[in-house]
Amino acid sequence: MNIQTIIQALHAVREQKPLVVNITNYVVMNNTANALLALGASPIMAHSREEMAEMMSFAGALVINIGTLDSAWTPRMAFAVEQANIHHRPVVLDPVGCGASCLRAETSRQIAKSANKLIIRGNASEIISLAGEKGQSKGVDSLDSAEKAVNAARFLTEEYQCNVVISGDVDFVVTKEGQVQLHNGHAMMPHVTGMGCTLSALTGAFAAVGEETGLAAAAVLGVVGEIAAEQSKGPGSLQVNLLDTLYQLDDETLIQRLKLA
Amino acid sequence: MNIQTIIQALHAVREQKPLVVNITNYVVMNNTANALLALGASPIMAHSREEMAEMMSFAGALVINIGTLDSAWTPRMAFAVEQANIHHRPVVLDPVGCGASCLRAETSRQIAKSANKLIIRGNASEIISLAGEKGQSKGVDSLDSAEKAVNAARFLTEEYQCNVVISGDVDFVVTKEGQVQLHNGHAMMPHVTGMGCTLSALTGAFAAVGEETGLAAAAVLGVVGEIAAEQSKGPGSLQVNLLDTLYQLDDETLIQRLKLA
Amino acid sequence: MNIQTIIQALHAVREQKPLVVNITNYVVMNNTANALLALGASPIMAHSREEMAEMMSFAGALVINIGTLDSAWTPRMAFAVEQANIHHRPVVLDPVGCGASCLRAETSRQIAKSANKLIIRGNASEIISLAGEKGQSKGVDSLDSAEKAVNAARFLTEEYQCNVVISGDVDFVVTKEGQVQLHNGHAMMPHVTGMGCTLSALTGAFAAVGEETGLAAAAVLGVVGEIAAEQSKGPGSLQVNLLDTLYQLDDETLIQRLKLA
Repeated sequence: MNIQTIIQALHAVREQKPLVVNITNYVVMNNTANALLALGASPIMAHSREEMAEMMSFAGALVINIGTLDSAWTPRMAFAVEQANIHHRPVVLDPVGCGASCLRAETSRQIAKSANKLIIRGNASEIISLAGEKGQSKGVDSLDSAEKAVNAARFLTEEYQCNVVISGDVDFVVTKEGQVQLHNGHAMMPHVTGMGCTLSALTGAFAAVGEETGLAAAAVLGVVGEIAAEQSKGPGSLQVNLLDTLYQLDDETLIQRLKLA
Repeated sequence: MNIQTIIQALHAVREQKPLVVNITNYVVMNNTANALLALGASPIMAHSREEMAEMMSFAGALVINIGTLDSAWTPRMAFAVEQANIHHRPVVLDPVGCGASCLRAETSRQIAKSANKLIIRGNASEIISLAGEKGQSKGVDSLDSAEKAVNAARFLTEEYQCNVVISGDVDFVVTKEGQVQLHNGHAMMPHVTGMGCTLSALTGAFAAVGEETGLAAAAVLGVVGEIAAEQSKGPGSLQVNLLDTLYQLDDETLIQRLKLA
Repeated sequence: MNIQTIIQALHAVREQKPLVVNITNYVVMNNTANALLALGASPIMAHSREEMAEMMSFAGALVINIGTLDSAWTPRMAFAVEQANIHHRPVVLDPVGCGASCLRAETSRQIAKSANKLIIRGNASEIISLAGEKGQSKGVDSLDSAEKAVNAARFLTEEYQCNVVISGDVDFVVTKEGQVQLHNGHAMMPHVTGMGCTLSALTGAFAAVGEETGLAAAAVLGVVGEIAAEQSKGPGSLQVNLLDTLYQLDDETLIQRLKLA
């Protein structure tokens, strides 16, 4: 995938304004809805079983994020994935804090197993844990480098027939065909909660218009986060500037800034 | 209702600091609490049945927003409305995404039917859907113009003995006696999640001091959003500037800016 | 406790980056996670019983905040406190809106009774209500001054073998040995929702590194809030500036600004 494909995907999101259904955690619902709106997509946060079949019938993609997992929500996530499969919709799985509890690891694997068109987006520790290796996470923050997670990601692409995005200092987009590295982003970004969750939500928007690798979302958020952080005194202004920059992003800026390898 | 009445209502909120009980969605709880505080009201977000009778006994108004509807919350919403009725408190209903699922439409109608002193606030698609016509929504975003929803709103005022606020490029405040148009606001506002939910919350604060049409809230948010958007580079700073502007709003600014028709 | 101890505690948080488990309310989950990250701690918001034993085995502290209390969550809070006791972890209790319903008062007392290493942080009305006296709250906002709550706090230190932080115009840190007053902060702070909840979360981070009185958190947030408010036009920018200032806080600023008595 090259930069022209990324730009086409961005244009497609802005033109089609796809509906992205999010079953996500309480902490980031507001941020991720705002990031989807700033990108040009149409977010809905919904978790009721009673309306999920309807929602998935006209949605473009489903994002499942287990950040504040609750046993009452797990069967609803499973049902939403079934509905996404019926309507051939892509599913993005964000296995937040996957290594922090057995509940999270098992729930994530169950979702990954059942989704037909799947992209997994996690930090290095989450990807390593999901693959069943011993990752080093502390709660929801990663203590492993993205490089170390690439083998685990490769395993996941085979195990679940999916693509994987590992976010970190360097982002890795791993498919069965190979891998791409992204060298954008900024050291201040992990000081804002839910930055990874935002990446997963944007991945859903791009998947809804046919971009199945997660690369376009990682590219856009990496560039936008980098620009926003350069203008920010701290994580408070970073959040604000990130939404502004995402809203204003043009092709030229994306081309100039993007560091693909 | 003229501009002087709006200003009196604003003064009343700031002096009385009414307690507004919100059963609202997870996405906007923080925004709407902050908007109520910036306006001068006192917000509480509560959804437990066990405390709702006590809360409604000293609250000024109840706001019910179905944005992240859950069957576990529906009976609590119904109970809260009963308690509001017992204490003669106004109820504001925000039928978020009403056209996106049968669950939402039915729940909204049930609440509308049971509330004695009711104001409904929705976008055009939501108002049309609530009235039982075929609206064009995509998730929670409206694809219909506010003008098209005025007939539906008129139907609702009779059906539920209520007043209706339709928000959009132009806002319409519809009562049995007639309608008022508001030409404030800004095209950037729909790019922030929960702007309509904020309007519903503010409507609750004004209803608590006796303003039963929803006009004062629409006027204040329209003016404040317009000023904030003019100072903003994107939806991130719009959110921040909106709270600052709401906090600082004085009579003169409101009079100068307000475009009633 | 003197200023040097506060600075050492700040350094310890930044070096150890303790994991703070929060069972907190929906309104403030995002803010308090961001405040913990800006301080240098590692937040996790979790409420599932199935993962709480694991989480508390490697967490540094537990923060329980009853702001959007739900009977489904109460037994989980109790279980989390049991686990914190087993692992000798400190528990911070934020009895939000304690006087607004019997449910809140009883739940708060139950938690206070069961926690072995406890810090309670509330506004004056909450502390008075928790002690069983007749406080004057309106929902979650305090109508009592912190001074009036000091006697109630003293009672709580004996009743529950804990330390108490009363936040208000003047903050009081009350232990069995005595009390300290903090004269920092700014009148704009109560216009942002969840400022008290943020103080409770930060108290958890400091407790995780051994600061058991709550003073370090009150000092840091008082100074940071004061600086941020001076740079802010309203409560919107205050939130943003607060996170930036917390992220940038250095020893010198803390020493210059702190008003202990």
